[in-house]
Amino acid sequence: MWLSIVWFCAFFSFTQALWPVPVEFTSGNTVLWIAPNVKVTYNGGNVRWSPQTYDKNGQTENVWIEQLTTNTSAYTSHSIIEAAVTRTLKTVFTQNLVPWKLHPRNELYKFEPAANSTKTYISSLTITQTGTDTVDTFKPLAGAVDESYNLTITEDGKAVISGVSSTGILHGLQTFSQLFYQHSTDAGIYINMAPVAISDAPKFSHRGLNIDISRNWYPVSSITKTIDALSWNKFNRLHLHMTDAQSWPMDVPALPELSKKGAYQVGLSYSPADIAYIQSYAQSRGIEVIIEIDMPGHTSVIGLAYPELIAAQDAQPWDTYCAEPPCGQLKLNSSAVDTFLETLFDDILPRVYPYSAYFHTGGDEVNVQDYLLDETVQSNLTSVLKPLLQKFLDRNHDQIRSKGLTPIVWEEMLNTWNLTLGDDVLVQTWGVTPTSVHDVVAAGHKVLFGDSSFWYLDCGKGQWLDFTNESFQTYYPFADYCSPTKNWRLVYSYDPTANMTAEELALVAGGEVHLWSEQTDPVSVEYMLWPRASAAGEILWSGRQDASGQNRSQLDASPRLAELRERMVNRGVAAGPVQMVFCTQHNATECSL
Amino acid sequence: MWLSIVWFCAFFSFTQALWPVPVEFTSGNTVLWIAPNVKVTYNGGNVRWSPQTYDKNGQTENVWIEQLTTNTSAYTSHSIIEAAVTRTLKTVFTQNLVPWKLHPRNELYKFEPAANSTKTYISSLTITQTGTDTVDTFKPLAGAVDESYNLTITEDGKAVISGVSSTGILHGLQTFSQLFYQHSTDAGIYINMAPVAISDAPKFSHRGLNIDISRNWYPVSSITKTIDALSWNKFNRLHLHMTDAQSWPMDVPALPELSKKGAYQVGLSYSPADIAYIQSYAQSRGIEVIIEIDMPGHTSVIGLAYPELIAAQDAQPWDTYCAEPPCGQLKLNSSAVDTFLETLFDDILPRVYPYSAYFHTGGDEVNVQDYLLDETVQSNLTSVLKPLLQKFLDRNHDQIRSKGLTPIVWEEMLNTWNLTLGDDVLVQTWGVTPTSVHDVVAAGHKVLFGDSSFWYLDCGKGQWLDFTNESFQTYYPFADYCSPTKNWRLVYSYDPTANMTAEELALVAGGEVHLWSEQTDPVSVEYMLWPRASAAGEILWSGRQDASGQNRSQLDASPRLAELRERMVNRGVAAGPVQMVFCTQHNATECSL
Repeated sequence: MWLSIVWFCAFFSFTQALWPVPVEFTSGNTVLWIAPNVKVTYNGGNVRWSPQTYDKNGQTENVWIEQLTTNTSAYTSHSIIEAAVTRTLKTVFTQNLVPWKLHPRNELYKFEPAANSTKTYISSLTITQTGTDTVDTFKPLAGAVDESYNLTITEDGKAVISGVSSTGILHGLQTFSQLFYQHSTDAGIYINMAPVAISDAPKFSHRGLNIDISRNWYPVSSITKTIDALSWNKFNRLHLHMTDAQSWPMDVPALPELSKKGAYQVGLSYSPADIAYIQSYAQSRGIEVIIEIDMPGHTSVIGLAYPELIAAQDAQPWDTYCAEPPCGQLKLNSSAVDTFLETLFDDILPRVYPYSAYFHTGGDEVNVQDYLLDETVQSNLTSVLKPLLQKFLDRNHDQIRSKGLTPIVWEEMLNTWNLTLGDDVLVQTWGVTPTSVHDVVAAGHKVLFGDSSFWYLDCGKGQWLDFTNESFQTYYPFADYCSPTKNWRLVYSYDPTANMTAEELALVAGGEVHLWSEQTDPVSVEYMLWPRASAAGEILWSGRQDASGQNRSQLDASPRLAELRERMVNRGVAAGPVQMVFCTQHNATECSL
Repeated sequence: MWLSIVWFCAFFSFTQALWPVPVEFTSGNTVLWIAPNVKVTYNGGNVRWSPQTYDKNGQTENVWIEQLTTNTSAYTSHSIIEAAVTRTLKTVFTQNLVPWKLHPRNELYKFEPAANSTKTYISSLTITQTGTDTVDTFKPLAGAVDESYNLTITEDGKAVISGVSSTGILHGLQTFSQLFYQHSTDAGIYINMAPVAISDAPKFSHRGLNIDISRNWYPVSSITKTIDALSWNKFNRLHLHMTDAQSWPMDVPALPELSKKGAYQVGLSYSPADIAYIQSYAQSRGIEVIIEIDMPGHTSVIGLAYPELIAAQDAQPWDTYCAEPPCGQLKLNSSAVDTFLETLFDDILPRVYPYSAYFHTGGDEVNVQDYLLDETVQSNLTSVLKPLLQKFLDRNHDQIRSKGLTPIVWEEMLNTWNLTLGDDVLVQTWGVTPTSVHDVVAAGHKVLFGDSSFWYLDCGKGQWLDFTNESFQTYYPFADYCSPTKNWRLVYSYDPTANMTAEELALVAGGEVHLWSEQTDPVSVEYMLWPRASAAGEILWSGRQDASGQNRSQLDASPRLAELRERMVNRGVAAGPVQMVFCTQHNATECSL
């Protein structure tokens, strides 16, 4: 109850706009300025943060060394922290926020400290890691890493971040970066709520974004920018829906025809080096990349390279044989398919292993009609198909486990097909039924939540199909299946673990927010993701309820989200606006009902 | 019928992807390359198009002189054409499209000419203007300018554009820029459908975008970029909804307090020089800027500077007194208001006159309850308010006419209040009722169409208000009043003049597509406008029906729009994708129902 009072006050003073909201947070009203030469230590050792001055063609240039090498074996906890400190201080010093949009019109001066006041500086940032990282810290199973952190800033300018793991410290640095503002003059960077004491930890262990990089092509830079933004929001998983019916954008050296014939264009595919770069880029930011190769459905594209492996390839009418064109599924009783998958997994899984505990084999939307056209099956009967699917899944999961990885599947494998799954398997729901999450838990399996009615960011744009003049009236006004748009308030209202017992909750690893790419590509992806994915991020980190058990209020969230959005824009991500400026300036008393 | 056959073929060959579609278009299959030194003439005189080579610090730099000075008196038809030719050839040579997304996977080679083939070059572009521009060409009333053009390219490489007005020639140059592709090697820029013969003219005279630049702040660069994109789509009007309740972003030297107190922040307002720059930037691109100062509603912001002029300022509960907070309306029977408006108009209108035939005084959503709180009225009765509104409108319109301008009002002034309007007045509908457009025409008035059910690009994002936990269930799932999203197919289906007689049609000046800014700002505006506004652009230029009287098909439009979108992205505008690449590569046979 005490905490909710703190937040009530925070809301009206606009001073404590952290996102996601920490578990515990107390603050005062003392102004501190951050010293341009703030001394940073990590477990007592000096952290050499940039900018470092170089000579370039006779001119001095400041360079921020914010990126590690892609050689993962070179990583140490120290090198990860050093790069993170550099990114954090680069953001604090060069991408900070003059918060004029967050205070009443022409009244920023009431919030800002006087530019010419005597300054007390934050002169040190002391980082202490109380535990020791292991290899699992950087590629964890859900729950394997303690991500908690503490952050304090004293009135005399001593900042301290501590955490059990380096991952927790990364989160603490993200929080640190949200505490500061840029003065509207060149007076510097300040915090006006010292002393600060924050104690924080996530509610859910698996906090992910699933992004479809098959249906449209995304360059590596688009993915790394997404990773940056995820880290700002304390996500820790990036699920890459790598392949689907429409394209195969991943080079597989053992099966080169896959991307040569299946990429949207030769060259528009990720090389092994690209994948490693993405994985390590994420890893150094506390994010684990999970690669999905969806099967046996959504595999038409494999037929471009290996037509003998696919049943119902391009079958028409397509809406009989698949949810989206082009149709085609891996044959279900084919030794050639088994051989193909063994080769495929043997190639990919060792490249996954250094960076992730998981491998995702999909399993959604298997279309039974395709197997009528599959000469190895010739049936659409569940009684025929189920044992074949079980065999298919067992083969995959055995190979995944043999490579030291844990399988993830879409919920249909359990909820629709009732297959037997290992206890290790994570079952990912997307809201096939309203009880999807509970059904998985009731079956005793670990679950990832997510729901097309709440957390599908692609919904509400309308149909992506074109309609003939003859079918026009049938589909008018062209709403999509998961309309309406999931605006941030709807995303924020999702509460899949309501009314669960502690025993049930123990099976919930966390969840993922989703972006399918039928109508999104690199030009629009930042706007489609942000700030709506941030709303999911707070549910995943902080939970739907506050410490008093009340659902978090839009009136509390809205100004904080608006501030986060401005910070994200300043950091180079084109997040959409939360509200018009009038509302962000006056949110407490206006723009609400 | 012949034309529709042409288009049927075009659809399957993907070769004639012009947007908006011209009235007449024939083409062949001869390949031509555009000569890097193509000679351009205008009425026999040489057109000096860039790039012109300059020396910069010892290094050669190519500079494209694509922008005129802002001194409108320096404009000539020749200078406008010269700048337009430069922009066109800059686009053709440096921002062109390798159309891999528009042809089947890995089959671009079937479309492209061989890189090493013997080349026939387009060596000349001959521009002929058959009429003479007058001052009205550059600030026309609807219908005052002949915007038609003809464009031919012969098989031996002679390109010709002719038009009655320079405006028509600008449109011809836009079409010209859409005929070329960049080769995937460095072989050059080609057209593979010579000979070409295009004869084209718009269906509607007034083809506009209305953008709300009050509720969020847009820098000048955001507006000029919008003007560029409008010109590519053959729009000819930009309606700036300049002021609303939330902010006053326009400096008025005679009333400096308006922007000083009413801008979102001091400095976030357009100076007279900014406005002139926007107006002339548009004018040189064939686009007339129309400024709206909305009144008597939507004027709360005036109260920040002149509280004595506003009734019901910030009245609560706001949903009783206005459609959006903050509430407040100009008092309706106040000599102080009259004096204020006379000063305001005396300042603004002479700055409008060089660039536009119109001035828009709004008139939407007048809230009668406010006048109960207006000591000059003290009534909410129509019988009391109507004569006062008539007097208010007459005063405004008299002054507008005295400055040589023509008034525009929102439809409520006629359709709701049944005021007496001059025959010169343009009445802008937004779909207050389904018969809005017909009602205006039936009353014998000139009309602009537009409809919140079709052409409101802001719709479908969900509510922008925040809801308390108490009101949460009432508004869940937070759909906005004009949901669903107007996707491009819905925009494209709008047909406000269906079943009109020729006499009725004569009163239809054209229409406008709208973007209100509660949830849009400069970060997201390009994505919010494009390519959906393009769909409105084709309805305005080409009409909902083809030459045979059939409604245009999504299957014809979709690949053309997808190509336009790629061109827009290459030209620097972040238009959203029309479909996933699989569909743009295979649209004819897949991705439709």
